[in-house]
Amino acid sequence: MAATLHDVAKQAGVSIKTVSNVVNGYTNIRPETRARVQEAIDDLGYQPNLSARSLRSGKSGVIGLVLPELSLSYFAELADAVIARAATHGLVVLVEQTGADREREIAVLSSPRMRLTDGLIFSPLGMGQEDAGFLEVDYPVILLGERIFGGPTDHVTMRNVEAARAATELLLAAGRRRIAVVGAHRDETLGSAALRLEGYRQALEAAGVDYDPALVSFTTLWHRANGAASMRALLESGVGFDAVFGLNDALALGAMRVLQEKGLRIPSDVAVIGFDDIDEAQYMVPSLTTVDPGRTAIAETAVDLLVERLALGGREAPRREILVDFDVIARESTPG
Amino acid sequence: MAATLHDVAKQAGVSIKTVSNVVNGYTNIRPETRARVQEAIDDLGYQPNLSARSLRSGKSGVIGLVLPELSLSYFAELADAVIARAATHGLVVLVEQTGADREREIAVLSSPRMRLTDGLIFSPLGMGQEDAGFLEVDYPVILLGERIFGGPTDHVTMRNVEAARAATELLLAAGRRRIAVVGAHRDETLGSAALRLEGYRQALEAAGVDYDPALVSFTTLWHRANGAASMRALLESGVGFDAVFGLNDALALGAMRVLQEKGLRIPSDVAVIGFDDIDEAQYMVPSLTTVDPGRTAIAETAVDLLVERLALGGREAPRREILVDFDVIARESTPG
Repeated sequence: MAATLHDVAKQAGVSIKTVSNVVNGYTNIRPETRARVQEAIDDLGYQPNLSARSLRSGKSGVIGLVLPELSLSYFAELADAVIARAATHGLVVLVEQTGADREREIAVLSSPRMRLTDGLIFSPLGMGQEDAGFLEVDYPVILLGERIFGGPTDHVTMRNVEAARAATELLLAAGRRRIAVVGAHRDETLGSAALRLEGYRQALEAAGVDYDPALVSFTTLWHRANGAASMRALLESGVGFDAVFGLNDALALGAMRVLQEKGLRIPSDVAVIGFDDIDEAQYMVPSLTTVDPGRTAIAETAVDLLVERLALGGREAPRREILVDFDVIARESTPG
Repeated sequence: MAATLHDVAKQAGVSIKTVSNVVNGYTNIRPETRARVQEAIDDLGYQPNLSARSLRSGKSGVIGLVLPELSLSYFAELADAVIARAATHGLVVLVEQTGADREREIAVLSSPRMRLTDGLIFSPLGMGQEDAGFLEVDYPVILLGERIFGGPTDHVTMRNVEAARAATELLLAAGRRRIAVVGAHRDETLGSAALRLEGYRQALEAAGVDYDPALVSFTTLWHRANGAASMRALLESGVGFDAVFGLNDALALGAMRVLQEKGLRIPSDVAVIGFDDIDEAQYMVPSLTTVDPGRTAIAETAVDLLVERLALGGREAPRREILVDFDVIARESTPG
């Protein structure tokens, strides 16, 4: 098998980005680093001009990023990181929004409008496991998210179950037992909502706390407005709770707003935790405890995998499933 | 209808990827497979170079959107609206980030990577009036923002001075006289910061309130973190104030966080107003009074103007300068 960018990086003991910089002739690289990379390139017989060659043979230098919508801060920050990483490889990014609609997601995969891209980073929210076959296309696709597992393409995703379990455990460790969930999806077995709910249930079970369906509220979208509406419904339902797990930060922030409108104190009356670690989480009052799911690592890994696929020029290589690491970031919305 | 890759794959009984590999001239394909695919291609009259041809015809169906960064919510929401509007015209959007860096903004205008786009929507933050000449390019450009006026292209922008004046007048009407400003830029005569500061000064002057430079704090970037840092500096300086005008929402929200950390009540001790009306503004506690500068109208107008230019096919037409309407949205962070 031909050596990849990754092989060169490993042998030279540098990042893929550094190899890419050397290959692309950037000048701000230390001579020793450049020499080490060049040695690895020579050793491994790596052909750095494959992608340049393939450019001449019809490659556009454009990759596509397909996501639900940039108005969701998680995806805006993801897109930012993808575009920045792509630039280091000399690639530009075409961004397509699908509104989390299954038909539009499927349509984009065969859209003639996508013919201009060399490959896609594809983050579906509407498609499900049964749609994996649509990913069989004649260009490289790097799949993100949790809607489809074991499909035909490389896949980069986060540790949803473990991270949600850790988030719930933080609330349990603070003595909370009535933990409401905001943002669950009905009739779903995969997807972020289902996996995070599963992590929540695992944590409860491990702690010997019964699962109470009355504490779980459902939404379709994950905007601040949905978190606010769900929290209003939970409060009106009269079900008692001392903590809230927002399945993403926007939901948690919408819920927090309503809790404060009703005069409830955070975290003493109700502790709140989110998921995503979007920038605004740390500026809320109180600042939001949340999970950093490794968004930047997801973006950068996805771009690097796509670049490697493009360098293969259509030759087969085993598909890869990559899970990035997460962190729980404790802030003021949970007891210290 | 012309035969597709899919048709060829079906008739040849191979995967789409295999057809693609044959079409692209890859060598690692068994001769029998290659022959079968070639037969299907001939049978169906499949033309693998259709997209190449449409490239030669000059239109790619791709427009470029060049902006500072998607991590700034204003630009994420702008990009969302541009992509959505472009889709209604059957266009896809290539998003390029410049980090508000003048050199990168200028470079993108002549970048070969932009050759694939039919035209650009261009939102600079680093370039200035003296750089207007760089906008003289051989494809349509719709300029956004307030860095360059009277340039060679169509221009869509907001009423910065009037809107900032209205925002300041709201604070003055509430009896506030010591209005701090967060986010000013040094040595700037154009640009959002300079124009909004000008609106602030006009409002003060009309109300007979002296302009106090000690109340104006400077930043380069307009992130939440910058608003927080500026507010800390203002508080430490000991200059008294009873209101804050954040020149964008992110600055205002960062400042609000610090005010609340210090135990100051909003709006009774310090009233706060922002600018942009990003989604999170209404979910803060207290919710943020702000200016809706017409972001959606800017995005949609820019796309529509670009589509009109593309329809002209290079024929000359007078350049247009379009100012959209704004609204002041009163919420809890200013006295009711």
